[in-house]
Amino acid sequence: MTAPGTLYGLGIGPGDPELITLKALRILRAAPVVAYPAPEHGDSLARAIVAPHLPGRQREIVIRVPMLVERFPAQAVYDRAAAEIGGHLAAGRDVAVLCEGDPFFYGSFMYLFARLAARFTVEVVPGVSSLTACAAALGAPLAARNDVLAVIPAPLDADAMAARLEASDAAAIIKLGRHFARVRDLLFRLGLADRARYIAHASMASQRILPLGEVDPATVPYFSVITVHRRGEAWR
Amino acid sequence: MTAPGTLYGLGIGPGDPELITLKALRILRAAPVVAYPAPEHGDSLARAIVAPHLPGRQREIVIRVPMLVERFPAQAVYDRAAAEIGGHLAAGRDVAVLCEGDPFFYGSFMYLFARLAARFTVEVVPGVSSLTACAAALGAPLAARNDVLAVIPAPLDADAMAARLEASDAAAIIKLGRHFARVRDLLFRLGLADRARYIAHASMASQRILPLGEVDPATVPYFSVITVHRRGEAWR
Repeated sequence: MTAPGTLYGLGIGPGDPELITLKALRILRAAPVVAYPAPEHGDSLARAIVAPHLPGRQREIVIRVPMLVERFPAQAVYDRAAAEIGGHLAAGRDVAVLCEGDPFFYGSFMYLFARLAARFTVEVVPGVSSLTACAAALGAPLAARNDVLAVIPAPLDADAMAARLEASDAAAIIKLGRHFARVRDLLFRLGLADRARYIAHASMASQRILPLGEVDPATVPYFSVITVHRRGEAWR
Repeated sequence: MTAPGTLYGLGIGPGDPELITLKALRILRAAPVVAYPAPEHGDSLARAIVAPHLPGRQREIVIRVPMLVERFPAQAVYDRAAAEIGGHLAAGRDVAVLCEGDPFFYGSFMYLFARLAARFTVEVVPGVSSLTACAAALGAPLAARNDVLAVIPAPLDADAMAARLEASDAAAIIKLGRHFARVRDLLFRLGLADRARYIAHASMASQRILPLGEVDPATVPYFSVITVHRRGEAWR
């Protein structure tokens, strides 16, 4: 009998191919099978990030995830992907799943983990999160000293978001996309707009930093962040 | 006139030397001067993390920081370090400051940044944070879907901490050290102890994971974390 393979959740970092870790790179290059998410139509960001590092000759599994299902992920998609990945693992082949940023920080890897961790050995390799890449690009600490930092997904309604902002010293609002205009209006209403910074595609060639009032909501991608420092620049 | 050097804030990751990024490694190896924090007496954790990667022949600046000053960092220490680093930068030498985890995520790099960013070019290289290394080691996502994640420094008093926990779905309590017993007691009182996990020195050889009730408070290091998932394992 063949010993089963290991499932790797590989954090590949926020976008700059040089922000991958030595560990993720080693496992990526050695894995006979590589799996990654992609939109329903078009190219995979995760695969593009590691493209300069791929040795070739690897089997690739493309997990096409419809973008509309935000709160309720496409269970059938992950069922199918888990079955295909599980087949390789059972046959003794390691599978590396590419995860933008970090696998266990709001990542979709958890859906594969939930389906496969009981049957197979899983190793998660942490990666550089897009949040700290945003802070680096903005030239401003995300959180300092004894600040409470809240990470707030943009789909939250305005009242819930206002309460969470109120309960924190610093905040990062993530998953903006089509929620941008609503979040921006709330921050203006709360008097926090001049303590907020907008950044899209941190660390990538397409990186953009703009004052909140100058952002065209139609151009805001899912991978964008607004940071808020309610108490100003506490680190100075 | 010599062109001034660049100040690099290098995220070197949570402890495992293999969790450094390609970018940090490249800059680390090329820098003529390397600076890093160390306790008042004893060895520097940051230097130990990169020791396998150092080419030698680099000038080293040890920034010895007294451990007692938690809320009010030793201003004089950073004044002196900034002056020494500034001297190298002015003389045209790049300086790489080693930062455990990420430089702009509760790191002491901000004190040097605040003192030197107006005069010199600064580049911050984001690193793998100890938080996501904890999640990887625990085998449990830090946050999922539309969870609000609160990062809460342990020095907060019990009422403030309880309010922040209440305003979040998932939490990471950081900087535990001598605050551990107080935090543990609060979590038991709030009925959250069985949804909490304790981990020290994530990704290092000395890594330890224990149920909250089994931790000896006398052994809890500063670099330890308690994760709390108030709503249970939302990712399943």
